[in-house]
Amino acid sequence: MQIDIWSDIACPWCFIGKRRLESALEDFEHRDEVEVTWHSYQLDPSLPEHYDGTETEYLASRKGMPEEQVRQMFGHVAEQAAGEGLAYDFDALVVANSARAHELLHLAKERGVAGAVKEALLSGHFEHGADIGDVDTLVRVGVDAGLDEAEIRAALEDGRYRPSVEADVSAARHIGVTGVPFVVVDMKYAVSGAQPPEVFREVLQKAWAEQTPAIQVVGDGSGGDACGPDGCAV
Amino acid sequence: MQIDIWSDIACPWCFIGKRRLESALEDFEHRDEVEVTWHSYQLDPSLPEHYDGTETEYLASRKGMPEEQVRQMFGHVAEQAAGEGLAYDFDALVVANSARAHELLHLAKERGVAGAVKEALLSGHFEHGADIGDVDTLVRVGVDAGLDEAEIRAALEDGRYRPSVEADVSAARHIGVTGVPFVVVDMKYAVSGAQPPEVFREVLQKAWAEQTPAIQVVGDGSGGDACGPDGCAV
Repeated sequence: MQIDIWSDIACPWCFIGKRRLESALEDFEHRDEVEVTWHSYQLDPSLPEHYDGTETEYLASRKGMPEEQVRQMFGHVAEQAAGEGLAYDFDALVVANSARAHELLHLAKERGVAGAVKEALLSGHFEHGADIGDVDTLVRVGVDAGLDEAEIRAALEDGRYRPSVEADVSAARHIGVTGVPFVVVDMKYAVSGAQPPEVFREVLQKAWAEQTPAIQVVGDGSGGDACGPDGCAV
Repeated sequence: MQIDIWSDIACPWCFIGKRRLESALEDFEHRDEVEVTWHSYQLDPSLPEHYDGTETEYLASRKGMPEEQVRQMFGHVAEQAAGEGLAYDFDALVVANSARAHELLHLAKERGVAGAVKEALLSGHFEHGADIGDVDTLVRVGVDAGLDEAEIRAALEDGRYRPSVEADVSAARHIGVTGVPFVVVDMKYAVSGAQPPEVFREVLQKAWAEQTPAIQVVGDGSGGDACGPDGCAV
């Protein structure tokens, strides 16, 4: 069973949704046959690579919202995050563009460690004030996941994974994704947003039950000339 | 649409079946959306790397069939091949183990040129007396398809694609393949043997019609907190 997840790193509901899906997967009896693929999505490609103010200041200036209101929003989100065991720290959060972090994720995907890198990026960003726009931070995350430092630096330098990031974003547009997290099961059912684990559980069961049980051999099986271990039909 | 084909190189019906499928694909209106993946299968892993006699002698000695009967069989197969525009030359055919040719195919698959290499191997083996057990022959085939000579030699030397070949053979066993060619469409319908183009045409149409039209968003779409271009839900 294939699960495709579009998500950003600078996306508080994406981390919460990740935990809720994981909680549903824990109870899912066929979890060992599930393959998760992370796809890139950028909520705000216009974000500066680095921004010296706080996330509160950034949102307040960008949206024209009173800082107090932004702080209340964060309080609500942090509460939901805490409910999933996540310790969001909006005061420490570093505002940064996630483009390069997505490039790192694609390198990680090629090397089979996308899950670990995604987790480290989300946790770093929301819980530990990590700057996901900073190359050295990304190198550390990648190396911790087993990637080669020289390869990470070279990839972030020459942008070899930019087309892969763009392909993900364009696939999201094609599918009709307008917000993230966006979880697609077997390219058949989608769960939009960080819904409760029960919703994920239901979709997993439904998609599993509908999987084609086996390949159906067309015709009576005798119509085609073939070669087998004992020789070829003539 | 995904087409998975298990086939060997030393398999006369595999080349004929390839042409019949290609003929069906030519008429298929969605042919540009079809992706073909070649999978390895070895009809006779016990074949020697090199055998000095003719295929007729090999089969006659191995099966205990009179050479005249083997020649008649070849005549029949060559006739079917000619019907698909293929000039089989059983007198020139070099008996050889296809293991290394399959390793080359996996390298070619990684580099996106599996189709060209598969075609060259089949044509070389059945039409031009090429020795598919010979490293220099495989190098020539690979280089003609755009692969790097040093990489081919290194891969055939250290056997880095042997696990990929074995994975294909083991997948075939899992699916229940007992003879080749074995063509699977969308992991749903299988065509066993070199059946007429009409059979392939029918399966392509059927599988296409049954493809899930679009991803279905579960629930009313409002149940999950998400982040969008205008910010995050709170």
